[in-house]
This record gives sequence, structure tokens and C-alpha cells, in this order.
Amino acid sequence: MRGVVMYSPGDVRVEERENPRIIEPTDAVIRLTATCICGSDLWPYRGIEPADHQPMGHEYVGVVEEIGDQVRTMTPGDFVVGSFVISDNTCEICRAGFQSKCVHAEFVAQIGTQAEKARIPHADGTLVVTPGQPDEDLIPSLLAASDVLGTGWFAADAAQAGPGKTVAVVGDGAVGLMAILAARELGAEHIIAMSRHPERQKLARFYGATEIVEERGDAGIAKIKELTGGLGAHSVVEAVGTQESFMQAVGATRGGGHLGYVGVNYDVQIPGIELFFAGIHTLGGPAPVRRYLPDLIKMIWDRKIDPGKVFDVTLPLEQAPEGYKAMDERRATKVLLTL
Amino acid sequence: MRGVVMYSPGDVRVEERENPRIIEPTDAVIRLTATCICGSDLWPYRGIEPADHQPMGHEYVGVVEEIGDQVRTMTPGDFVVGSFVISDNTCEICRAGFQSKCVHAEFVAQIGTQAEKARIPHADGTLVVTPGQPDEDLIPSLLAASDVLGTGWFAADAAQAGPGKTVAVVGDGAVGLMAILAARELGAEHIIAMSRHPERQKLARFYGATEIVEERGDAGIAKIKELTGGLGAHSVVEAVGTQESFMQAVGATRGGGHLGYVGVNYDVQIPGIELFFAGIHTLGGPAPVRRYLPDLIKMIWDRKIDPGKVFDVTLPLEQAPEGYKAMDERRATKVLLTL
Repeated sequence: MRGVVMYSPGDVRVEERENPRIIEPTDAVIRLTATCICGSDLWPYRGIEPADHQPMGHEYVGVVEEIGDQVRTMTPGDFVVGSFVISDNTCEICRAGFQSKCVHAEFVAQIGTQAEKARIPHADGTLVVTPGQPDEDLIPSLLAASDVLGTGWFAADAAQAGPGKTVAVVGDGAVGLMAILAARELGAEHIIAMSRHPERQKLARFYGATEIVEERGDAGIAKIKELTGGLGAHSVVEAVGTQESFMQAVGATRGGGHLGYVGVNYDVQIPGIELFFAGIHTLGGPAPVRRYLPDLIKMIWDRKIDPGKVFDVTLPLEQAPEGYKAMDERRATKVLLTL
Repeated sequence: MRGVVMYSPGDVRVEERENPRIIEPTDAVIRLTATCICGSDLWPYRGIEPADHQPMGHEYVGVVEEIGDQVRTMTPGDFVVGSFVISDNTCEICRAGFQSKCVHAEFVAQIGTQAEKARIPHADGTLVVTPGQPDEDLIPSLLAASDVLGTGWFAADAAQAGPGKTVAVVGDGAVGLMAILAARELGAEHIIAMSRHPERQKLARFYGATEIVEERGDAGIAKIKELTGGLGAHSVVEAVGTQESFMQAVGATRGGGHLGYVGVNYDVQIPGIELFFAGIHTLGGPAPVRRYLPDLIKMIWDRKIDPGKVFDVTLPLEQAPEGYKAMDERRATKVLLTL
């Protein structure tokens, strides 16, 4: 089968990879309908993380082709959406809603779903079957649920976005935009998007932002305070992952408020004393997307939310290298790859 | 009046200080019945924080001597317990339970309650009147409520200690011991004290520890995992504040678990990526003791809890320098100063 492999930073190729097959009785093999390139795929692309002949991709929707003997919730032909972290969905950690820390957790990025097919371990605990075969126009939204929507939703939930709350979202990438959508659906009163890019500001407003703040760092914090009676936001989502953006998010959160963060670079160092005197709740980590998937799929199926708009470029899998380039150069927010 | 002043690190003196008087109509002046030395007073004593003729002390119980025109909840002669942070208890942040981040927050440490008297701003929002004049033997427990008990309680609450939970407490100082007491009162199933000192292990067991772990760092984390089916504790309290202890606490918390921390040294740097992949909730900061004070006073008054045992040395105020020395040399856990 054809699949994307990153030979080294900046060197992405589409080449023949071995066809996946059932190994464990809890596995499923799926034929991908669509996949995409993640902001986090740019880390190895830019040399911030190592890359050495790594199969790429961890977001996916597709059709079940084959299942292991112990798979119970799906049959070949079913359309499925999966989380970017493998989970059994039965262990104590999964039952507490933290499937991304499952005792059997494994990153799908190690499998590489920018490919024609993929073997998904713990299929029952990782994949969710849709109510039927989706209409073509729902595919991007279902694909978004696999990571960016699920991650943005977790971030907004971790920040306890909800009625009566002012939510500030640091970052206008796909995840930040999805956190805005989530904050709106969770009933937040004010949603402040911290963004400098006119195109993304437009998308942010489409997804529910009520205010835009262009300032960053201390000036950004001061602006958030100005908009919140000097107190800071109740809920802050950090969706960039740099030292500056993390500390901006900490500073924008009011005492006793909640910060949800969903990605940090390897070099971020949080001064303990600043976090201490901020007096805030934090929750972060790889999102437990599996927790939210059934609800997210239902909202998409009922056409209540439209996260698929976050994809602004669509390319065939064979042109994945151009997709990486477009995202690296910020010509694209998020690239969908068709199969 | 007599009061403790730290001239420079290690140089603590008892000398004449100006008598406090009402300045704002929301002030009260109290005559102290007892005060004490805090673990955090050792930071300037050891030169970790600067000290330059600083009046010392932020824990206190006493009798109201004079009140400003706008004070409503107390009259001269009332016995009061106060928080170590001034709060109005009416602003939005206070109403959310984070009185230590009150818009009028001010550290009592700037006032210095290791003295005969103290002016307490925002008296109604900072002090709580006891149900009557306390019996002599209740004084140490009421004094503990002012900081160490309130702080330990907040830490256990921040870590969401409760029924069915395994709670690990990093640190066997006064605050750690109080967090153990709080975890027990909050109904925790297992309480693991991380302690190497036989005397403090004994106190830890008295306050409710069900297990003791002597290992530290990675070995300590491994031991906590061993005791929790490989998962880590649901709830972890960090009550030391060093780089090693903080990361030990992070590592001991299960995915999706809760870490409560109540003090960090100025040099602690938290690697963002480690906190991220831990996938845990955190809540820390100067404890909003005022939130808990009414309940804590009631439990003490009803002789349901006995936090006063945390004081193992009692000295008259004039001998405060010896008290600092005893705590610095770990000959004392916590020193009560009588007046």
C-alpha cells in the first residue's frame, strides 16, 4: 500500500509500505477514507523533534476491512472514526475518562495513518462506528473529530468553559479554532480569540468568538484583564505550546480559574513560583478523544456543528509533501488528504 | 509593643515595634494570644529569600481590641482566628472560594504577627470569631487553622482526596501532616505518607496515614505505583516545594489524577513536556484558608480533630530566635510562641 514516510526533517515522501494485517485478536484493519496533516507533524518536519524514516499520520476515518476474533462492536464495512491514541476503554484510567493515559495507550502516530490502510489495536476501545455510511460532505468533520476537534473540545472542557464564563483561547490554529467551537457549544458567555491573522479571526468568529485580541505576551494579558474587570478569564485554553504562549495563558487566567493546555514544545520550562502565585487549576495532556467521540459524532451527524471547515486545503495522499510544505509556510491551516 | 524582626538571614531579634492602630474603617487591632513560626519563615532565615529588617509572622489567634467603624462581625473582646492572607471575602474571586487571590489580597507576613498586637485590614473578610472564649488546650489547634491546617486542608481538597481515593502526601512537615489529617476527614481510603523520619512517621500515622513510603525521587514514584496497581495515586499532595519533590509528586499522580501543591521554591522549573505527558490536574497556590476557616473552627471546637499536636515546641515570644534555630536544625516540626 501507499503511505507517507518522513525520511528526515523536511523530507517527506509517499512510498510503498507493507500492507497491515491482523496481529492481535483485538485488532481491526481499516481502509482509510480520509486522513490529514496535524500541526504536531510539523515538529519533526521542522527538526524540533527527530525524524528518521517515520511513517506519519494519526488522524483517520475509514471503513473496517477485517477484524480480529475478539472485536465485538464493529463488522467489516462499518464506517469508523478513531482516536489518535489507542485505548482499551475498559481499564480504570479509561473508565475515569482519561483514555489517552490508558494502561494500553499507544500513539497512533507510531502506526502512521497517512496511508491507504492501518492496523488499529484495541479496535473496540479506540474506534467508534458511525450511525451509517456518512454523506460525502460529513467526511471532513468526522475526520476533525479524530484529533483537532476532540483535542479542542478537551481543552475547553479542561478549562471548564461553560455558562457565565469568559473563555480566552491562546492560538488560532486548528485546535484553537475547535476549542472556540467547543466553548460555544458548552455555553460560554464570552469567547476571546487571541489571533493576529485576519483569515483566522474570521474563522474564529464563525466558530463562536465574541472578541478578538491581537496583543501577545504581557500586552495580551493586560488586554484580557481589561476585558474581564481586571480579574482575568475564568477559562483559558492554551493551543500553541511555546514558552511565551504558555505563560501568556497562565497570566490570562484569574485566580481560581482553569487553564486547559493541549500541547507544549520540548523546551518549555514553567517557573514553579509563577504557576504557584497564579493560584489556578491546570489540566493538560494528549486529549482523551475517545471519551468525547460518541457525542462529537452525534453532533456532526445531526449537523449541529461543522468542524470540517477547519480544513482549508484538500490534496490526494500522493501530494502529501506539498501539504506539509503549505502548512509549514502557513499557507494552509490544516490539510486534508483524500484516498 | 514587642515583636520579632529578621534583620538579615539567620539574625532574628525580638524588639520594640510601634503599636498598631486603626487606619482604615475596615481594620481591627487584635491582641495576640498565640502565634508561631512557619516553615516558610525559614526561607529568608536560610537566605533563600531576602530578609532586611522584616517584621515576621503570619499565623495568629487573639482577642479583638479595637475595630474600625465599618467592621460588623466582631466586637472588642471576641476571640478570632485569621487567615494568613487578607481578603475582603466579598469580591468575585473570594465568592468563588479563592480568598488568597482576593482583589484586596495582602500577605499578613508583611504585617508581622509574631508580636503582641497586629492591625488586620478587612477584618470582616479575614478574621472569623470563635463560638466563645476557647479552652486553653484548644489554642494550638485554632492557631494551626490559621495556616498549616488550612493549607494542608486546601492541598488535600485541591488533590480531590475523598472516598475510594488513594492519597499520597509528599512531605512530612506540618503542612504535610495536616494534609494527612484532611485526607482522612475527607474520607480517603488509603493515605500514603512519604517520610523518612521515625518521629514524623508516628505523627503521620496518628493523623491517618495508612502506609509509609521512605523512598524518594524515582524510587519513591516506583513504590507509589507498586502500591496502586501500577497506576499511581488518585490524589497527590506536594508539601515540600523543591524541584525533586515537585517532580516526585507529578510522577506519583495517575493519568487524570489530581495534584495539590502549596509551596514551591523560587528555583523550581517544571518541564512542560513532563507535566503534559503526565496528563494530570493541578491546583496550587497560597491556600484560601478563609474559605475553610468556619468549618475548621467548628471541627476543632467540637474536638473532632486535633491539629494542635503539630506543635512540638512551645516558647515565649521573647525566645523566638531559639525557635527559629530549632526549626532550622529540624529539632522542632513547628514552634508555638506564647504571649
